[in-house]
Amino acid sequence: MSLVIRPAEPGDGAAIHAMVEALAKSHGEQEHFTAVAADYETALFAPGTMIGAFIAVYGGVPAGCAIWHRSFSTFRGKETLYLEDLSVLPAFRRRGIARALLGAMAGLALSRGVPAISWLMMPWNDAARKLYIEAGAEIEEGVCLCRLHGPALERLAT
Amino acid sequence: MSLVIRPAEPGDGAAIHAMVEALAKSHGEQEHFTAVAADYETALFAPGTMIGAFIAVYGGVPAGCAIWHRSFSTFRGKETLYLEDLSVLPAFRRRGIARALLGAMAGLALSRGVPAISWLMMPWNDAARKLYIEAGAEIEEGVCLCRLHGPALERLAT
Repeated sequence: MSLVIRPAEPGDGAAIHAMVEALAKSHGEQEHFTAVAADYETALFAPGTMIGAFIAVYGGVPAGCAIWHRSFSTFRGKETLYLEDLSVLPAFRRRGIARALLGAMAGLALSRGVPAISWLMMPWNDAARKLYIEAGAEIEEGVCLCRLHGPALERLAT
Repeated sequence: MSLVIRPAEPGDGAAIHAMVEALAKSHGEQEHFTAVAADYETALFAPGTMIGAFIAVYGGVPAGCAIWHRSFSTFRGKETLYLEDLSVLPAFRRRGIARALLGAMAGLALSRGVPAISWLMMPWNDAARKLYIEAGAEIEEGVCLCRLHGPALERLAT
């Protein structure tokens, strides 16, 4: 079967929505998944957007995606890339699609003169861990992800 | 002593450099700190920049900073804020400066209509943990931070 990795285009919002939903399900995070397809269309193609996505098309069908945003390393003093989601639909896993999406991300970093890509991984995700180690990624364990939102955010605001 | 939190201005690069360096030292990460002061001036004030910073001025002296960048939550489908660094110079700690910087970040989020701020914390950083819990942040433990750079990034690129 053919595999093509291409940048997201207007109209891809529904496919991206299905892929992020699959990711939310496999992480047991459905209750935090509130996006609708139009959110991705809006965010990806807004003037001055700082996000982008690649779509993996396998045998003519959207099968996976990588959604990234611009980031910045204060230690390097340089812009970097952050990989927010790497998702392959369950029916298309174990075909090298995630690896190909990572390759496209690496190519994007080089083309932008960006020295690094970073992302988060859940510690229980053995399939992801295997892929990332094979790709040559460094993995720092045991980091804490902090979030401030809702009433706590409003209380704190000055 | 007076405490004023203000957005970074051109000319703040050297102060920001000293503060990020203090942070790198307290994290034992000096070898990864390669930024120079001009990097921050360039990144903060470039057209289309997606980063920003607040400076805490204590008794007339720059004492701390919060450096942030725009981010995006695929689960929410909305832009968010990411707090890259929150640094207070050692001589100025325990004066409520970090809390005031967090308050300014929360105010920025509300003023931009952004529903959440996220950031990473090292698990051993008890002082930070206390501050973030008191501020009402949610803390997810045990996450893995992955990075791809250097030869591995070049090998992978397609």
